[in-house]
Amino acid sequence: MTQLKVLHTHHYHLTAAQCNAQSELAPSQLIQQIIEVATEHADILGVGFKDLQRHGNLWVLSRVAFEMKRFPRLLEDYSLTTWIEAYNRHFSERNFEIRSGSGEILGYARTIWVAINMDSRRPADLSYISYISETVSDHPCPIDKQGKIRPIDPPQIVHEYTFRVSDIDLNRHVNSTRYVELILNQMNLADFDDYFLSRFEIEYRREAHYNDTVEVASSLVDNGLLTAINLDGQTMCLARSVMAPRENKTETKNINQQT
Amino acid sequence: MTQLKVLHTHHYHLTAAQCNAQSELAPSQLIQQIIEVATEHADILGVGFKDLQRHGNLWVLSRVAFEMKRFPRLLEDYSLTTWIEAYNRHFSERNFEIRSGSGEILGYARTIWVAINMDSRRPADLSYISYISETVSDHPCPIDKQGKIRPIDPPQIVHEYTFRVSDIDLNRHVNSTRYVELILNQMNLADFDDYFLSRFEIEYRREAHYNDTVEVASSLVDNGLLTAINLDGQTMCLARSVMAPRENKTETKNINQQT
Repeated sequence: MTQLKVLHTHHYHLTAAQCNAQSELAPSQLIQQIIEVATEHADILGVGFKDLQRHGNLWVLSRVAFEMKRFPRLLEDYSLTTWIEAYNRHFSERNFEIRSGSGEILGYARTIWVAINMDSRRPADLSYISYISETVSDHPCPIDKQGKIRPIDPPQIVHEYTFRVSDIDLNRHVNSTRYVELILNQMNLADFDDYFLSRFEIEYRREAHYNDTVEVASSLVDNGLLTAINLDGQTMCLARSVMAPRENKTETKNINQQT
Repeated sequence: MTQLKVLHTHHYHLTAAQCNAQSELAPSQLIQQIIEVATEHADILGVGFKDLQRHGNLWVLSRVAFEMKRFPRLLEDYSLTTWIEAYNRHFSERNFEIRSGSGEILGYARTIWVAINMDSRRPADLSYISYISETVSDHPCPIDKQGKIRPIDPPQIVHEYTFRVSDIDLNRHVNSTRYVELILNQMNLADFDDYFLSRFEIEYRREAHYNDTVEVASSLVDNGLLTAINLDGQTMCLARSVMAPRENKTETKNINQQT
C-alpha cells in the first residue's frame, strides 16, 4: 500500500496587495488559506471535494480556533502545515502550524470538518474512507480546543449587513471568510493598530444566503469581543475574538465602540 | 548588462475556496492578481515597491480595462502574462494576457500605473529608472484602450456603504479590489448566472479612507452599467461594466434593479 502523506505544507509569500492596514496577513485571509491547505491535503489523501462528490457528499467547515504569536508581515515568507488529529465517520479534526520562512512558530489552528450529504444536508457516513484514520498524527498543537461561546445580552455593538454578490461562494452560501470580516469589522481600525487578534474562535452553525440581512451583535468582554451573527432570530455563527497588545504597546485592552 | 525580462508569467490554480457563486474566478480577484503579477514583474525589473520607496515614491494603479472571453473555472489552471507596452517618466502602461492551462486565450487586460511621491502625493519623476523603456514590448493586446466614462444622471441604482477595517489596504486607503466588489454588487446574483462580465473598465480617481461613507450610483446602459463611487460630491472612481450572455443563454441583456 502507498504511504499516506501525514503532514502537508504550503509555502506562501505575503505580497503588498494581500496585506491589511497593519501590513500583515488579515485574519480572514489566514482562514482562507487554512481552508485551501486543508483542501489540498484532502485531495492528496483521496478524500477531497471531487472524491466526496462522487458519493454525493461534501466537507463543511464547522469550527476554527487559532492562536497567533504574530501574523505574517509584508514581503515575509511563511508556511502552513496541516495534519489530522482525529477522525471518525462523521467528522475530522485537522490542525495547522504556521511558521515564518526562518522556521519561527507564528501560531497554531484547530479546525473541525463535518461531512454532509449534498441533497439532504444531513451528516454523511464516511466509513468508506476509514483508511484516513491511518494518517492521524500526534504532531503537537499546543493551543486549547474551542470553548463554548455564549454571547452576553444585550450586545453593545450592533450592525446590519445585507449579503451581496461578492459575499457568495460556489455552494451559493455566504463565504466562510466573509463572516470573519464582518466580525472583526465590529472593531475600529485604531484597535488593530494597538492590538492584534491573538486568539479567534468561530463556530459556523447555519448557512446564510444571498440577499439575507443579518444582525452582527457583539458584547465587550475583558480582552475582546463575543459576537453572534443572527438572521430572523436564528444564530448563523458565533465567535470569540481575543485581542492582545502589540509588542511596543503596554496599555490595557480597551475596544472602542465603532461610531 | 543583464538581459531584462520583457515578459513575466505567473501560473495559478483556481481552488474551490477561491471561487465565486458561478464557480469561477471573481472579477475582483482577477484585478487582485493583475496587481500581484504587475508587482512581481516590477520587482524583477528593479522598479518594485521597495525600489521606489528608497526614493520616496510609490506606484499607484490609475486605470484597469479587461476583456474576457470567459473566466477561469473551478480547479482550472490558468496564467497571467504581463509586459510593458509604454513607459515615460510619469506613468507606465502594462498589459496582461490571461490563458487557460491548455493555452486557450481567456482574455486581456490593460493597466495604467502612475508613480507618486509618498509625502506630497504629487506625480513623481521617474527619469532615474528610464532603463525600463528597454523592456517595452509590442506583444499583442487586441482590446480597446479605456474610454472616457460619463455616468448618466440621475442614477437608477444607488447604495450607501461605509468602509470598515477589512476594506483597508497597507497604504491605509480602500483596497482597489473592494471598489470592484461594490461596483459589481450593484447587480443581482441572477444577473451573473445568466451573463458574465465580458468587459470592465475602472478609473481610480481619489483615495477613500476608513469610515468614509460613499454612495455607489449606477446608470443602466444597453449592455451593462456605468457606475460612480462618490464621497461628499466628489467622484472617487468610475467604472463601466459590460455584460454578455453566457454560452448557453441567448436572451437580451436586462439587468434587474437590486431590491
